[in-house]
Order: sequence, then C-alpha cells, then structure tokens
Amino acid sequence: MTREELFANIQRKRSFLCVGLDTDVNKIPEHLFDESNDPIFEFNKAIIDATADLCVAYKPNLAFYESIGMAGMDILERTIEYIRGKYPDQFIIADAKRGDIGNTSTMYARAFFGDMNVDSVTVAPYMGEDSVKPFLGYEGKWVTLLALTSNKGAFDFQFMEDANGERLFEKVLKKSKEWGDENNMMYVVGATKAEMLADIRKIVPNNFLLVPGVGAQGGSLSEVAHNGMNAQCGLLVNSSRAIIYADSTTEYATKAREAAQKVQQEMDELLKEKGL
Amino acid sequence: MTREELFANIQRKRSFLCVGLDTDVNKIPEHLFDESNDPIFEFNKAIIDATADLCVAYKPNLAFYESIGMAGMDILERTIEYIRGKYPDQFIIADAKRGDIGNTSTMYARAFFGDMNVDSVTVAPYMGEDSVKPFLGYEGKWVTLLALTSNKGAFDFQFMEDANGERLFEKVLKKSKEWGDENNMMYVVGATKAEMLADIRKIVPNNFLLVPGVGAQGGSLSEVAHNGMNAQCGLLVNSSRAIIYADSTTEYATKAREAAQKVQQEMDELLKEKGL
Repeated sequence: MTREELFANIQRKRSFLCVGLDTDVNKIPEHLFDESNDPIFEFNKAIIDATADLCVAYKPNLAFYESIGMAGMDILERTIEYIRGKYPDQFIIADAKRGDIGNTSTMYARAFFGDMNVDSVTVAPYMGEDSVKPFLGYEGKWVTLLALTSNKGAFDFQFMEDANGERLFEKVLKKSKEWGDENNMMYVVGATKAEMLADIRKIVPNNFLLVPGVGAQGGSLSEVAHNGMNAQCGLLVNSSRAIIYADSTTEYATKAREAAQKVQQEMDELLKEKGL
Repeated sequence: MTREELFANIQRKRSFLCVGLDTDVNKIPEHLFDESNDPIFEFNKAIIDATADLCVAYKPNLAFYESIGMAGMDILERTIEYIRGKYPDQFIIADAKRGDIGNTSTMYARAFFGDMNVDSVTVAPYMGEDSVKPFLGYEGKWVTLLALTSNKGAFDFQFMEDANGERLFEKVLKKSKEWGDENNMMYVVGATKAEMLADIRKIVPNNFLLVPGVGAQGGSLSEVAHNGMNAQCGLLVNSSRAIIYADSTTEYATKAREAAQKVQQEMDELLKEKGL
C-alpha cells in the first residue's frame, strides 16, 4: 500500500485507528471454546468483522501466535488471508520486532512480505543498517522501526544521551532517514510520551508514526493528535486490549465495535480540527 | 542446563564450538531433493550426527525456518526434538532476537522455553528491562542478550558514547547485570572486534559470551580465546556457514565433520593453554 492510499483510507473512513490483534487464548470469551473447534480464529474473525469499517489497520503481534506453536502460526496466516480477502483496504502490520544481520534479515523479509504478504513489519534498530535495509526492498511494503517504545524499559537505553545531548531514539530517527523515506518507513513512538511527539516531528515531519499505548496503557488520543498529526495525518494509533477485550460475554464483538467506534468518533473530530 | 554442566561438557568434549543451523533451502546439496521428501530435516540430521561429538551447542536461526512458513517451523521443532532425544548434552540456542513489552515477552518466553524447550533464546536489548526479564524466570534456561554484534550495522548505534565515554553496548552489559547473573545470562559479542573482548571481560568477567563471526565472517579463534576465555571457559564460539556448507556434494556431512574437527582441535589446544 502506498502512503497516498493509506491517507486516502484515513480520510474516507474518518479514522486512523489500528486494532491490535494480540489474541491471547487465556483472555478470549470462554463460550467460544464450547461453540467452535477453532475458537481463536473465530474470535479474530468476529473482531475484524465488527471493526473493519472503523479502522484502517490491523496489527497482529506474532508472540501471541508463536506461543501456541504451529497451530498459532496457522491461525495467524488464516487471519491475514481473511483480512486480505474481505477487507483489502486494510494495512496489516506484523508486530514481530525482528532484526538480524543482513542475510538473515533478508530471510525474515521474505517470510513477511512474500508468503505472509503483510504490508509492514516492526523492526528493532539495535543492529543497524544492514539489519533494517533488507525489509526496504519490497515495492509497497514498509518498515515500522522501533524508535521510542511505550514500556517502562524504554528508559533503560532509548534515552541515553551523547555528549551533544542527542538521545538514542533521536539517533535512530536521524540515521534511519538515510535508509528509507516517508514512503517506506514509519516509526513506533509510544503514546506515554505524547509531549515528545512534537520533538520527534521536527526530525521526521512526513513519516507515519505508529503510536501504541493509547487506551489500556493510558495515553491520551487528543494529546497524540495535537502533537503528532501532520498534513497527511501521519498517525496510526493502535489499541489492542481496550478494544478486543472490551467484553468477555457473547456480546464481545458488539462491545469491541462500540469501543472502536468511540475512538473512531474522536478521531473524526481530530481530523476535522486539522482540516483533513 | 546449568553453567556447571555446560562447562563440564566443554571440558569433556574439549570444545566450546556452537554449530549454527542456519539451514537455507537454496544452499543445501541438490541431491537431497532427489533422495528425500524431507531434505532440510535430512540435512540437519546429517549435520548434527556428523558434529555432535565435536560441539557443545547448536544454534538454529529462526529466520531460516520462518522464511519457509509452517513447514519450516515443523522442521525446526523436529530438529530440536532430534537433538534432545539423541544428544541430550547439547545446549540449544534459538537465535530469534526477540524482545517486546513485558506481557508480550512473556508469551515469547513461553513459546521458546515451554513447547519448544530450548536452553536459551537470543534477545535484543533495545526495549530494556521488562522486555528481557520474562525470559529469566525459567529454571535452567538462559537469555543470550545482544551486546556487540558482528555485522557492519553494529557501528550505527552500539558504539554511541555518552558524555563519560561509555558506549551503548557497555551500558547494555552493565544494566543487564541488574536483571540476571552468570547463571542465566550470556551475551552476544561479535568476533570481528576480538580486541574489545578484554574490555568486555572487565564488565562481565564470569558470564558466557556467544561469539559469532568466527569462520565465514573472518574472526580469529585464537584472538577470541586469548581475550575472552575465563576460568570456566566462558566462551561459546559459533560457526555456521563454514561448517554446514563446507561442501555441496554427497560428501557434505563428512566435510562438515572435518571442518568442525579442525575447529575443535584448535579449541582443545586453547583450553590446554588456559589449563582447562
């Protein structure tokens, strides 16, 4: 998907919501296990059907699928196929946080952009250029590079400062601009630091930012929009648990839709404020 | 496996070699595709049988298996089972370079230490403490944390210096000592910087170091040993391509054994020099 197509989807759907499909076998409604032989996939399908008109992206986190072995990987593949087939305008991000030496990153890129056919993969920057670049060689595909994450451990290394006061996450943003551009690279920027989005926008004014941590993790959507939105929106705001686990009864899909709709309506207002 | 058991294996086998099972469907001998319906597993099995008495560890890189989809993950699982069943004294490292926010790392840890039952997983440090700690909660299991990698991109961020001249990889070593100790944490240290091993040993004198990049990537084994060996050896030196692709004919397993034996004999000498 191109940047223009992604922006067009955001304008048309009045939403820059990304729904995180962090489907945990221990958290999905219990009745699904009685009703289906394939409860995790049924859950994903119901959540997707309930939210697809309210969001522009889905982000399955690989760990949740890998943790149940090959059955999990099979569910992930079928989930992606389901989205591709029924909702082709969705941007799919494999939240895998990969990154390895050049020839190995090439293998990962082939896995995600070839067979699995997602639009983007999250990539960790620690190993530098040759670990990231192999993901940039695919037409219409994207790297979502970790810059500033939303977890407590982000403070351990990402805020390290050099003698000039430049922090590691800023170095990651600056250096990576030599590898890709706003048409194939977006960045993970944690919403718990919404006030830092303005600083980040100075370094990467045109790139999309994937902002996790709104909702269950407590970030404020309007702060994120006011500090981070650019003329092509430039934001994908992720919500996982607050939407997919909004309810654990037979009403879970309806409640997930209501949670997503609440976010989408706020996003519509924020887009209007910006004249988009 | 405990540190004492690993060291005992090293002394008994006169080897601190780790064989990297980076099995690439495009690089294994062609005749295997004629002879078997399961050529990648057959290749792994033959390499393992040819090298198991000469090495103390195997390190499959997940990318090589993930890149061929679920069939690849099935081959990986069977390879690990094969090693576990026939060579229970082998230390198995899943080279996965994972790392995510706390609850997600918990899922990864469960995948690798539960079902897959490897001894260690490589973990990327960028996201800090809560991304690493979930891997440390398993008795007899290990984190192999990326500190200084052997690729060119290592220079992009890992050598970043703070105002006191402390570099990022040194911060990673120091900080991570608060999370685990020499009984559950080892570090990836690239052999292309063998001269730096002495500096690294000042920070982590007792931890095992996993040293990739000896062989195909050109590091010198004796330099690594002279700078990095401690009183319990403290080294696992990985070789992948130089061993597993030593030959592409029907003699590939024999040639892999010869390549491994050459390394093991040098290791025996280096252990003797150190009085181990």
